[in-house]
Amino acid sequence: MASQGKKLINNPNDVVTEFIEGLVETYPGLQYLDGFPEVKVVIRADVSGATYDKVAVISGGGSGHEPAHAGFVGEGMLTAAICGDVFASPPVDSILAGIRAVTGPMGCLLIVTNYTGDRLNFGLAAEQARSEGYKIETVIVGDDCALPPLRGIAGRRGLAGTILVNKVAGAAAAAGFSLTDVASEVKRASEMVGTMGVALSVCTLPGQVTSDRLGPGKMELGLGIHGEPGAAVADIQPVDVVVSHVLKQILSSETNYVPITRGNRVVLMINGLGGTPVMELVIAAGKTVPKLQLEFGLAVERVYTGSFMTSLDMAGFSISIMKADQTLLQRLDAPTKAPNWPVCSAGNRPPAKIPVPLPPARSTKSEESLSRPLQLNEQGLILEVAIEAAANAVMDMRDSLNDWDSKVGDGDCGSTMYRGAAAILDDMKKYYPLNDAAETVNEIGSSVRRAMGGTSGVLYTIFCKAAYAQLKANSDSTVTAKQWTEAFEAAISAVSKYGGASAGYRTLLDALIPALAVIKERLNAGDDPSTAFILSSEAALAGAESTKDMQAQAGRSSYVSAAILATVPDPGAMAAAAWYRAAALAVKDKYQAA
Amino acid sequence: MASQGKKLINNPNDVVTEFIEGLVETYPGLQYLDGFPEVKVVIRADVSGATYDKVAVISGGGSGHEPAHAGFVGEGMLTAAICGDVFASPPVDSILAGIRAVTGPMGCLLIVTNYTGDRLNFGLAAEQARSEGYKIETVIVGDDCALPPLRGIAGRRGLAGTILVNKVAGAAAAAGFSLTDVASEVKRASEMVGTMGVALSVCTLPGQVTSDRLGPGKMELGLGIHGEPGAAVADIQPVDVVVSHVLKQILSSETNYVPITRGNRVVLMINGLGGTPVMELVIAAGKTVPKLQLEFGLAVERVYTGSFMTSLDMAGFSISIMKADQTLLQRLDAPTKAPNWPVCSAGNRPPAKIPVPLPPARSTKSEESLSRPLQLNEQGLILEVAIEAAANAVMDMRDSLNDWDSKVGDGDCGSTMYRGAAAILDDMKKYYPLNDAAETVNEIGSSVRRAMGGTSGVLYTIFCKAAYAQLKANSDSTVTAKQWTEAFEAAISAVSKYGGASAGYRTLLDALIPALAVIKERLNAGDDPSTAFILSSEAALAGAESTKDMQAQAGRSSYVSAAILATVPDPGAMAAAAWYRAAALAVKDKYQAA
Repeated sequence: MASQGKKLINNPNDVVTEFIEGLVETYPGLQYLDGFPEVKVVIRADVSGATYDKVAVISGGGSGHEPAHAGFVGEGMLTAAICGDVFASPPVDSILAGIRAVTGPMGCLLIVTNYTGDRLNFGLAAEQARSEGYKIETVIVGDDCALPPLRGIAGRRGLAGTILVNKVAGAAAAAGFSLTDVASEVKRASEMVGTMGVALSVCTLPGQVTSDRLGPGKMELGLGIHGEPGAAVADIQPVDVVVSHVLKQILSSETNYVPITRGNRVVLMINGLGGTPVMELVIAAGKTVPKLQLEFGLAVERVYTGSFMTSLDMAGFSISIMKADQTLLQRLDAPTKAPNWPVCSAGNRPPAKIPVPLPPARSTKSEESLSRPLQLNEQGLILEVAIEAAANAVMDMRDSLNDWDSKVGDGDCGSTMYRGAAAILDDMKKYYPLNDAAETVNEIGSSVRRAMGGTSGVLYTIFCKAAYAQLKANSDSTVTAKQWTEAFEAAISAVSKYGGASAGYRTLLDALIPALAVIKERLNAGDDPSTAFILSSEAALAGAESTKDMQAQAGRSSYVSAAILATVPDPGAMAAAAWYRAAALAVKDKYQAA
Repeated sequence: MASQGKKLINNPNDVVTEFIEGLVETYPGLQYLDGFPEVKVVIRADVSGATYDKVAVISGGGSGHEPAHAGFVGEGMLTAAICGDVFASPPVDSILAGIRAVTGPMGCLLIVTNYTGDRLNFGLAAEQARSEGYKIETVIVGDDCALPPLRGIAGRRGLAGTILVNKVAGAAAAAGFSLTDVASEVKRASEMVGTMGVALSVCTLPGQVTSDRLGPGKMELGLGIHGEPGAAVADIQPVDVVVSHVLKQILSSETNYVPITRGNRVVLMINGLGGTPVMELVIAAGKTVPKLQLEFGLAVERVYTGSFMTSLDMAGFSISIMKADQTLLQRLDAPTKAPNWPVCSAGNRPPAKIPVPLPPARSTKSEESLSRPLQLNEQGLILEVAIEAAANAVMDMRDSLNDWDSKVGDGDCGSTMYRGAAAILDDMKKYYPLNDAAETVNEIGSSVRRAMGGTSGVLYTIFCKAAYAQLKANSDSTVTAKQWTEAFEAAISAVSKYGGASAGYRTLLDALIPALAVIKERLNAGDDPSTAFILSSEAALAGAESTKDMQAQAGRSSYVSAAILATVPDPGAMAAAAWYRAAALAVKDKYQAA
């Protein structure tokens, strides 16, 4: 159903003047002639007609095609842009004002898109300026390849190819050529370019209702840039198919719109029509280049991808192909201060892809060489029982964890933790180097990373990797309780930094942070390490239970009401407390047994 | 009603890889790691990790935000961009591959947007890379100002402000600073920027249906860039109001999101969300700058307007404000080869507007001095009767012309021509300098331009101005028949060039071109000028009548069927024949009377 078009504007009648005001706020190199509302002319801030010693280059036309043409004003491209109202040619007096503002003794080239209104108003302005003593030449650009060639005047509208023509003109003028030479080079360039577009939507004029001309699943081929119907309507096709169709039309040897044949060098412009995301434009560019190369035998020298000559908020793009020789490439590559001319398109093309680099050779041992020691030392034995107890505790809790998680999250916490714990038990038997505590912690991280998905999998991997780095840097083969504690602290810091949570956020940290505080305190107080571990694990349990009273700050739980949250503890915190507690009890047992 | 989103893509699962392929086709300075489909990493073509002597700067995240981040890879900005699938964080192995590809002895800074997935995957990659011996620092950017500050982790999402942070990082790295220094400068910059957005539509994921969450006339404020609901829904307001609201939120002294206070210097980024036309972005920029200056007392040092960090095809924009000091401006202004970093934003701001230049002083006579001569000479008398007869003939035909035009056009041809003819009669009595034929023709053009609208008004003005220029250049006070004919020819040429029509296009030229041919022929044959004029006018009439058999090539008539066109002549051609014929008869009468 047709409805009022949505736009972020003020009064629809003021869009062009407000655009110009915004443009000069954005680009300090631009100014405008103080003739609002009638005279809407953007000029280079550094040019004054009386003293300008190059050919002035002026383009323009109806607005609604931004950044064309005002965004292409700048040294090396347009000297001035004359802006009409939306989709309406600028009046003669505006064009004259622009000519007078920037034209010096070298004269002025007017580049006019092939629409009746533009031709007439620019034409009259040219005649009037001549009678005032200015040297004026005019080039009319019609690059449309959508309509059959015999439709006369209307047959070749001026489309995005005009932007390429404007660049050639600006560069030729900047190089110091005479008006006659600039005009003849520009006329030639205008005959080398063909354009055709495809649209997924009809543009909406400011303050108007949105047309429902183009139904769901349909696209228009050979569109105009003023909301006029396209040459054909078709079902939406993959962009591959669309590009092929458009290229065939532009490069047709029947219509012979552009003098481009196999073996020629060309430049390509993929032009967004206003409502098209960059992603789609760039995808189209990526599909067009190999087709031009392989199917049409053309050398693609430059690719310009972006929104250059739009049609308000229309979704879709046009493709322009321009035959290129060395001079033309030089003009296109020449530097310019026009803010919207695309940068970084020139230059030699290296191979597009390079191999993924391999990880540096492991300075310690390779994964293949990892294996469970034949004989465990005392630390290895303790590590083994601790890991085994911790993993079993987590696996035993699967159903409780899933149940709690189903109330506050997506219900898979228990299953995810189970997978990680099972993988640890499995891998430990196969190859954990249990006599090396640091490397064992690292391997636990690898098991978890491989087996667990989701946030908790990554967080536990980070936990292990950070602990590993700390152990490796600060401990010998036998790790002291203090060194374990420092590794525990480093692991908690990393989880907090990358997970973004702190104490009280209703996460596993609410079990681990109290545990860390207690074990540090008890060790400082001189407690026996295994006793300190037990006391610390009680703090972990208490911390996990206390999450019932916490408001979630992260993840899905943050959308759950406090009333529901109060009925269950955070399953992640409970799981952490469980494995920590089980490890502490196992270590205590082992020491008591020893 | 929800319907399949329209996109110009191929397989929705391939959009990111096809985007990257298109990107490297467009920009020869970029390459990608050959690890599709898993490893989607864009890197600078000129950097190899082993030998790179600056700090590498890497950013990335889910795709769908193009050009972010891959479009910002280039000397002076990012060294690599890691691309996830659409709205999904890249996996750890991709990030690691990117780090390994570009990181040299100076180390690597990871700039991470504050989303859980990004934090975790980049965090784990950072820990892993460290354990491989790389120097790594991480800065997490959360610039969102839309949500209340106490929501914990989720409170400050990474939005478009990240692009400014990336630029600061790239410039600091390019300047040769150490990893520690780059990281601390970047962390500081990340704390100086706040962002908030407004959306008119919900983005559509490739291959998904379009949400109808946001109804007609509604907008979302404080949006996320992954299609998640905005902080509030409101009726669409003028952009002035929207901008004020957003600025108040960002700069609120209650939330204190950014440390910006009255008197500070700031930079502004207006960021399109993917489906927003340039016009609307630039209008928003133009409205934001004076508000920052006048309402918030801030000095706006730079304005960046464009689409930098989008949300697929979402319509709307975000505003980012960053506190700026001299160092930060230097980083933002530093040159870069990142293709999508905006250019031409730096520099001193001249006055935005300059006066409209006046026409050069008329070298001949000023308009005020124009007046009907007290005494007409012979040529003046003939000119007067010819103009009078021609004007009356057109006025007499009003209803016929309107009638014909109603069948093939918009039905106002007669009325338009009447207005022009009446103005000519009126002005002639007041001030036409009838003894000066050239100036009189010029004045006819001025009368027509003032009184007539539309295409025909401009065409007749061009006709008169071109004839005037020819007469002025090539005739004395008495104009010969040959000189009149040359002026007639120049006038027809100008109308053809700027009107775009030729013989047979069913326009006024189909009356005038045959008339020109006959008068040239008869004068060459030695006929008496007034007889030649009569014969020529018969050719004009015949030519006008023959338009019945012509297919229209221009204007509205080109949409009318041949069957209808065959019932009426072209009204413009008939009007031209009528005034030409009347003038010829009047001249003949005058000569016979004399």
